[in-house]
Amino acid sequence: MSKIITISREFGSGGRELGRCLAKKLGYAYYDKEIVREIAAKTKLSEDYVNSIVEKRPFSMFPIHTGSSFQTMTNPIDDQNQLIFREQCNILKQMADQSDCVIVGRCADYILSEREPLRIFVYADMDYKIKRCLGNQSETETLNSKEVKKKILSLDRQRAQYYMFFSGQKWGEKEFYDLCINMTNIEMDAAVASIAALI
Amino acid sequence: MSKIITISREFGSGGRELGRCLAKKLGYAYYDKEIVREIAAKTKLSEDYVNSIVEKRPFSMFPIHTGSSFQTMTNPIDDQNQLIFREQCNILKQMADQSDCVIVGRCADYILSEREPLRIFVYADMDYKIKRCLGNQSETETLNSKEVKKKILSLDRQRAQYYMFFSGQKWGEKEFYDLCINMTNIEMDAAVASIAALI
Repeated sequence: MSKIITISREFGSGGRELGRCLAKKLGYAYYDKEIVREIAAKTKLSEDYVNSIVEKRPFSMFPIHTGSSFQTMTNPIDDQNQLIFREQCNILKQMADQSDCVIVGRCADYILSEREPLRIFVYADMDYKIKRCLGNQSETETLNSKEVKKKILSLDRQRAQYYMFFSGQKWGEKEFYDLCINMTNIEMDAAVASIAALI
Repeated sequence: MSKIITISREFGSGGRELGRCLAKKLGYAYYDKEIVREIAAKTKLSEDYVNSIVEKRPFSMFPIHTGSSFQTMTNPIDDQNQLIFREQCNILKQMADQSDCVIVGRCADYILSEREPLRIFVYADMDYKIKRCLGNQSETETLNSKEVKKKILSLDRQRAQYYMFFSGQKWGEKEFYDLCINMTNIEMDAAVASIAALI
């Protein structure tokens, strides 16, 4: 059975970079945005649309009622989101079957739990994340510290809701991970070496 | 400045063993029960008494009032506990000055925070901890699973209260540690190698 490492990460903590470096060091396949691309191809939906759903927006939380009757109607948005999540499950399982791999985000730790992945959670202090995000901004992005902080909090809240909706588990709660690594005072190389030592 | 690794651990998770193995691998000094022995020597209190306080019993939480007056009286038990905590701080700082070291428990991560220790939290699933405790029982101990679980929960509750009292921080909350490692599915050798890779 192939070896799987799943990386869950706070936005701005460097989890994605850690995943990429780790895959390179171990010679594993690396899956991140590829997952969205595959889902879009399979569902015939646009990559942008899939991206706006995956890790961000779960189903609407309540059934829709019509008039005074309590008959539940199907919600077409929910149907589409369900389709996306089903495809996401299939694609992650196919990826895990193909070879040893590192998978970033997308509830992979939960979806692939039967294959006993090494489950990593990457986090950092808020100041560290803000500084890192500001340093990584492209020329067209002009967010200030306050706006970056708002973005970090908002994206992490969405990830937590999405994760809770599908897994019933609390995102970032250490009992659901094998290793939680705080990047605030740890160099990227050391973090990669530390995780690689567990394989 | 000497390198310091502090290990906080859930009871039964194997944190103490991990600390010992790590110190051996790195050639660092290892401090655990030595701390209690030193405090006892310095305060002229018995080791058993110091042991019953350190990591277990903080001060009484409220001042003592006499009659209808709200005048605060000194509580001799609190005085003694304060003395023990002061000695604990001094001794930990002396130990940290002497050489690179691994220190298990005793709020060392908080007390030595200015020296920027590598702060590790070791934890595990309850079933793992119960099994490990049962396996480590001496011939005179005859606790069953239920009793062991009760002991684990009680000791961890005491540690959390003690830590909160002195640090104002939540024991085991991942933001206060650099690395949190779940021993449930990780072998001792791999855990030691993983932490050593961060040095």
